[in-house]
This record gives sequence, C-alpha cells and structure tokens, in this order.
Amino acid sequence: MDKPSLPKGTRDFGPAQMARRQYLMETIRQVFRSYGFLPLETPAMENLSTLTGKYGEEGDQLLFKILNSGDFLRDIAPEKLRVKDSRKITPDISEKGLRYDLTVPFARYVVMNRHEIALPFKRYQMQPVWRADRPQKGRYREFYQCDADVVGTDSLICEAEIIGMITEVFAKLNLKEYSIKINHRGVLSGLAELAGVKEKETSLFVAIDKLEKIGEEKVREELLAQGFANEQVTTAFDVLTFSGRTEDKLKFLRAKFTGVPTGTKGVDDLTEVFRLLDQYGISSQHVDFDIALARGLSYYTGCIFEVKIHGVAIGSVSGGGRYDNLTQAFGSKERLSGVGISFGIDRIYDALDELKLFPESAQTSTRVLVCHFDEATRAYGLPVVKQLREKGVATEIYPDITKVKKQLDYADRKRIAFAVVIGADEMASGQLTVKNLATGEQQKKTIDELVASLAS
Amino acid sequence: MDKPSLPKGTRDFGPAQMARRQYLMETIRQVFRSYGFLPLETPAMENLSTLTGKYGEEGDQLLFKILNSGDFLRDIAPEKLRVKDSRKITPDISEKGLRYDLTVPFARYVVMNRHEIALPFKRYQMQPVWRADRPQKGRYREFYQCDADVVGTDSLICEAEIIGMITEVFAKLNLKEYSIKINHRGVLSGLAELAGVKEKETSLFVAIDKLEKIGEEKVREELLAQGFANEQVTTAFDVLTFSGRTEDKLKFLRAKFTGVPTGTKGVDDLTEVFRLLDQYGISSQHVDFDIALARGLSYYTGCIFEVKIHGVAIGSVSGGGRYDNLTQAFGSKERLSGVGISFGIDRIYDALDELKLFPESAQTSTRVLVCHFDEATRAYGLPVVKQLREKGVATEIYPDITKVKKQLDYADRKRIAFAVVIGADEMASGQLTVKNLATGEQQKKTIDELVASLAS
Repeated sequence: MDKPSLPKGTRDFGPAQMARRQYLMETIRQVFRSYGFLPLETPAMENLSTLTGKYGEEGDQLLFKILNSGDFLRDIAPEKLRVKDSRKITPDISEKGLRYDLTVPFARYVVMNRHEIALPFKRYQMQPVWRADRPQKGRYREFYQCDADVVGTDSLICEAEIIGMITEVFAKLNLKEYSIKINHRGVLSGLAELAGVKEKETSLFVAIDKLEKIGEEKVREELLAQGFANEQVTTAFDVLTFSGRTEDKLKFLRAKFTGVPTGTKGVDDLTEVFRLLDQYGISSQHVDFDIALARGLSYYTGCIFEVKIHGVAIGSVSGGGRYDNLTQAFGSKERLSGVGISFGIDRIYDALDELKLFPESAQTSTRVLVCHFDEATRAYGLPVVKQLREKGVATEIYPDITKVKKQLDYADRKRIAFAVVIGADEMASGQLTVKNLATGEQQKKTIDELVASLAS
Repeated sequence: MDKPSLPKGTRDFGPAQMARRQYLMETIRQVFRSYGFLPLETPAMENLSTLTGKYGEEGDQLLFKILNSGDFLRDIAPEKLRVKDSRKITPDISEKGLRYDLTVPFARYVVMNRHEIALPFKRYQMQPVWRADRPQKGRYREFYQCDADVVGTDSLICEAEIIGMITEVFAKLNLKEYSIKINHRGVLSGLAELAGVKEKETSLFVAIDKLEKIGEEKVREELLAQGFANEQVTTAFDVLTFSGRTEDKLKFLRAKFTGVPTGTKGVDDLTEVFRLLDQYGISSQHVDFDIALARGLSYYTGCIFEVKIHGVAIGSVSGGGRYDNLTQAFGSKERLSGVGISFGIDRIYDALDELKLFPESAQTSTRVLVCHFDEATRAYGLPVVKQLREKGVATEIYPDITKVKKQLDYADRKRIAFAVVIGADEMASGQLTVKNLATGEQQKKTIDELVASLAS
C-alpha cells in the first residue's frame, strides 16, 4: 500500500500549531465581538451559479468544482463527449463548487435573508476558502479568511472602527511595529483626472500598485510604454511622491483637487476618518495615509486599507475597503454600501512566529501530568486529577502502569508544565511531589495546596 | 437573474444560531481540553486514495469528489468516454474528495507523523464533514463532528474518562435526563457463542441493533426468517432481556460466560471500567450497561458507548468505542489501539433548543448600543464606546445620525441588552441614560458607573 499523503497545497495543523492558531483567531474574534460584529458561517459548497462570474475569468478557473453524484454522464449527448472540451462539459457534470472567498457567500446570505436582517448589518466570518492556485511558499489551496464587514450604512464611523479593530488586534498580539496604510478611491480617481488620463485610470492604478515592488523608474517606464504622455506621468508622480504629515498631504491634495469633485470627496472622507479617530480616542500612530496605495480598485469605491508588519519579509497581512454595492452581483436593486476588513491568518501566524511573539500560553495545552508507580498510587491519583480539571486545569493521568521515567518522557514530549508524582510515601503523608518540568524545581504540596496553586 | 439559493442539504448559520453553536462547541472543547486532549485540524480535501475503501461500498458512493483542475478530459481514451460509464471514468477526472468523517483523516495524520507523536496520543477534532446522502429532516450533507480519541494505550482509564467527559459536557449544558449506554463487543460475541451462532454473529448483531426500534417480537421473527433455530434465538433473548442493576448483570453474565473467554473478557473490562469510575469519583448515575447495545460492531472491538437524551424524540446524540487498530487500513504494522467519542452537534443543538436549555448568554452577542441625536452627542459617545469595549463589553454606536427611535428599533431587532442614550442634557450633566431594553427600566449613570456596572 502506498504511503498516505496530503493533496498538494493543503496542510494538517497538529496540536502545537493549533494552539497558536486558536490563540490568534480567538484574539481576532474577541475584537470583532467587542465591536458588535456577530458571527456567520456559510457552507463550504455553493452552487456554481452563485460563484461563477464573481471573481473574473481567472477566478472562475481557480474554483474547485464538485462532481455531481450518481451517473453524472447519463444525460450528456455523445457528440458533446466526443469533442472532449473539458470546459464545455464542466457545467453538465458539476453544479457545486467550494467557497472561494467569504464575501460572495456573505452577499448571497444577505440577499436570501434580507427581511430578517437589521441594518446596518455587522457580521464576522472565519472559515477556510479554497483556490486551485499553483501551490508555492506561503500560498495554499486551503486557507482561512477572517473577515468583518458592515453593510447598510455610509457612515465613516465604520472606517474609523476598522482602524480601531486593527490597532486592538495588533496590540493584543503584542505587534508594535506596523503600518495601517489608508487611501481612497476618490484620491486615485482625482489623480487620474488631474493627469488627464481619466479614461485610462485602470492602467494607471495597476502601474501605481507596483510602485513599492519595482520602484518609481520602472513604473514610469511602464506607463510611457503604455502610451501615457511624459507630462501626464510627471503630473501623477508630483502628487504620488508628495511627502509630509497626514495634515500636510490632505492640505496639499485639497488644493490640487480644486474643481475635481471625486478627488475632493476622497480628501473629505479621509479628513473625516481622521477626525473620528480623534473623537474616538483611537490612536492614529500607526496609520499612514499613502497616496500611492492602490489595491483592489476594481471593487473598492471609498477608503482602502492595507496593513504591513515591519521587520519581516511578509507581504500585507490585512486589507479591506469600502464598496458600493454588496448585492448587485445577485441582481438586488437595493444599494447596500459596506466596508470590510480581512485578516490574513497564515501571514500573521508566520510574522508572530518569526518575531517570537507567541505567548507561552499558546505553546502548550495540558498543564499537569499525574504519574504513579502501581495500581494503588494510580487509584490515589484519580480524584486529584478530577479536582484539578474541575478547577479548569487541563490535566492528564498516565493511563498505563509503567516506569515513571516513561511517564516523564511523555510529559516532556508533550511540553506539559508540571508533573505530580505519587508514590507510596506521598500516599502515606498526603504530601505530593510537584515537579516543574521546565526548571526541574520540586515542591511538596497537599492536594488542596496543589489545586489552589495551579488553578490560579 | 435567478434568486440565489443554497445547495440542498446545506445550511447557513446566522448570528443567533452561531451564538448557540459557539456556546455548545466551546463547552465541549473546554471539557476535551481539561482532559488533556489537544486539537488537530486536517484539510477538507483528501486524496481519494486516502478515503476510498474505508467506509464500505455505500460510503464510497457518498463521497463528494472534486473535479480535477484544467483540461481533465485530455488524457481519457475516446472509447472510454463513448461507453459513458460514470463510475469507471470518475478516477480519471477526480483525484480528491471531501472529508467524510474525522477518523480516517486522523489515522492518516498519525501514519504520516508517527515519529513526532508522543504516545498515548490524545487528540480532539471539531470540523465539518460532507456526505452525499439524500437530504432529509435532521440529515445534512455538511455537518460538524466533534471527536476525541486516545490511541496507543489499552488502559481502561480512557473508557472511564470518556464517561467522565460525557458527564461533564452534559452537566455544563444543564442536561439532566440522559443515559450513557455502555456495552462491550466481547459480551456480544460471547452471547453469539453461547447461542451457538458464532459464525453468524454479524446477522445477530444487526438484528439486535433494531431491538429498541422494532421490539423483541419483530427481531425474533427476523432471526427465525434468517434461519436461526428457535432454541438459539431463545438462548440469546434470555441473556438480552435480563434486567437488574449493573452489578447483577455483571454477575449474571460472568456465570453464563464460564468457559467463554471473549464473553469473560467483556465482563472483566466492564467491571474494571465501573471500578475506575468509582476510584475517580465520576458518577455512574447516568451509565446504563445495556447488553443489547450493538452499534458499529464492524469497527469496535472493546467497549461501545451511545448517549440518549430523555424527553426528546432525537436519536443518539453521542457515540463511540474502542477499536483495535487505527492505522491498519493504511498498511501500518504497528498495532495502535484506541478509544474515541463523537458528539453530534446538530442533535444536541436540537435537544437543547427543544428543552429550552440555551442560556441567555448564548442568545445575543452585543450588549450595549450607544444612541445619539446629532454630531455633537455622537462625538461625546465615541470614547464611552471605547471604554466599554476595553472592559470587554461588546458595544456598538449607531453609525448614522438618525432618529433615536430608529436606533432603538435596531437594538431591539438585534436583541441588544442595553441602550445608552446621549442627548444634550446628558452631555451637560455627565449623567447618561441607560435603558434595559428587556424590562424598559431606565437609570442615570456617570460614564464610570456605567462602565463599572456593565463590565461586571
């Protein structure tokens, strides 16, 4: 029999990784909750009619499709099979696909449950998604997304709260060196208008998005090669490369955008977001207004966000923005504007790991192993185990009667913090030996003392 | 555009259901943890070579299979396509399937990571599984399993701990009327031997398993129709219908099984499990030794468990047992005996719902909505929101400036517990109006008083 293996691009998460992932996800969940976001879960499978056409042609190719059950070939015309056109046959043999992101299922949920939903609707969702991407370092075919979105309000309080949530998540994770980049679709559109390339703004944005990666020179060359005039490129870069404090940038742009309403709207919104942060008492210390930030602009219509952790070679770990109409793709006529943020669990995990920021509490799970020498000492240990568990202390008793060394080896391998060794002397005196397995330190304690000291 | 829909047999879990599901799953998780079980997560997709042949022929048909990416028809011989035999073509166009249970992926994980695993290995796993079953009331195509297993030890401490975990989960859930049925494969095999039908024991077990559903008369008829002799059936039923306390049953069986080693082994094990419960101080009040319990016997080799909640028409909500060799199906030569328990989340959810046992805390999530009249009062409210959140109180501020009535309606629909209304008077006096939305009761409080009272 062949050795079993995992499908490429997928992973198991064993106990050590899971403890860390649970710590990370629980931290994010607590912050989402404290801001009034409520949980939603949708099925892994969606009808292909729900998924197809939502992620562009490339996205459609990356959907994992599920083979229909039963005799799926029965109703296909033989001549259709003869052509062997996989793409054309797919709709005949597959009706369902795996979730590709959390936004489309969210939109589908809102459309289907519109009447029960109180607006503004604040939901969070933390579930895996699947993409048939070519697997590579740091890119997986199954990975978790952790999203929070508010729909049904245009209030910029939501944008301020997104910055608040990012700041709190990072504070709780002890991440101190990071930037929350913010920009606005209006600023970028205004910039395109200023440069006189309004009708080619998408090409401009795509090029700008590469600035950090390939640098100003290369982006200029690319734009010129695409037929932009030298003057147009220069105008754009005069704005893009303006540096200064946030207030300076806003002032500079406000002046530049005189008579450019989209640009002015962008500056107004950003000004308001910073004012709300101030009113809220949310620190804007990590917020970096970056005129050149241009992510997901086929989708976002207002503020856009992107978060980078300093000191690690890991791309953006979180991103989001405001969109105009969540449910449009499902034919809904009601305009439901919203704004959302997504945390990239895998990348944040890698960053915490690299920066050694996972706390001790996220390293292990079981705190105490009770060890024994024979039937009698094991029997004596059982109620001790029960008492510890009742106080919420994760405790095990070694189930088999075997050498104490073997039991302690097990505790070591499992990184258990304390061993309680029960021998005949301990049974007679009621004084149990408690060994700190990290330091080797030993103490004698009564059962009550033991429970009290570990439960705290 | 067609209205979007869900694939049949799948469900969304909106905020209200999620709050309850999280409460339920968190309760189980805490108990698993306190017993020293560590979390594992495996991918949704497994290679079909991992899944196929593990669940019987019917199970193989119920696997959801994933269509290969790209031009999946390319390498199929045209004559093979011409035959239109869906089953024969499946292996050519699908290499992966969705997880059907948590046991096979667990076994696959153990085989792949055998060298890093410290034995006994205690893992829990709470993830969805998928089965292409015909959907019907209470049966879904996607549902969660919550399993805990120990492998690598024969110690009956594990069986006692499974009873301990079930008892604790149910106590925490406030479920008071239930039975943990226990039996042993050895008792059933011994029974078959006693009745002289050793070579037909599987037919006997299948029939016994229907006792509760169709009654003694029908089971007798079925056995006779299958060619069992009247005497054989009578011998079996003399044992099956013996009633009495656990001690009486064990004594009765011990005498019956003189010279029947498999039966004696069953009685010995059960006796030891009850003795260990006693030593542990785990109540056996809910434990019901049921000689006629015969579940999953193609798989289990030792103790078997099944849990039923009284007073609701819901089948078994939890089950498990001891198996001989977890990794055998993957060709592993090492014998890894284990014992596991699985909680059926959907059924326990339905029972808690029907018995109205979900606590208030599992009903809602956001505790406080801050309401306001205009820009100034909203700005005054923002730091109040921040302080409440910092104390762990889930709090929202209504983002738009609108009528207070609309804001309170929102709080009602979202079942928020308290509204803090901030008007010009409140701003001037620093005394905020706090309204309990369930009782209508109003109080005036300073910000500090408010935070202190809600944070507690």
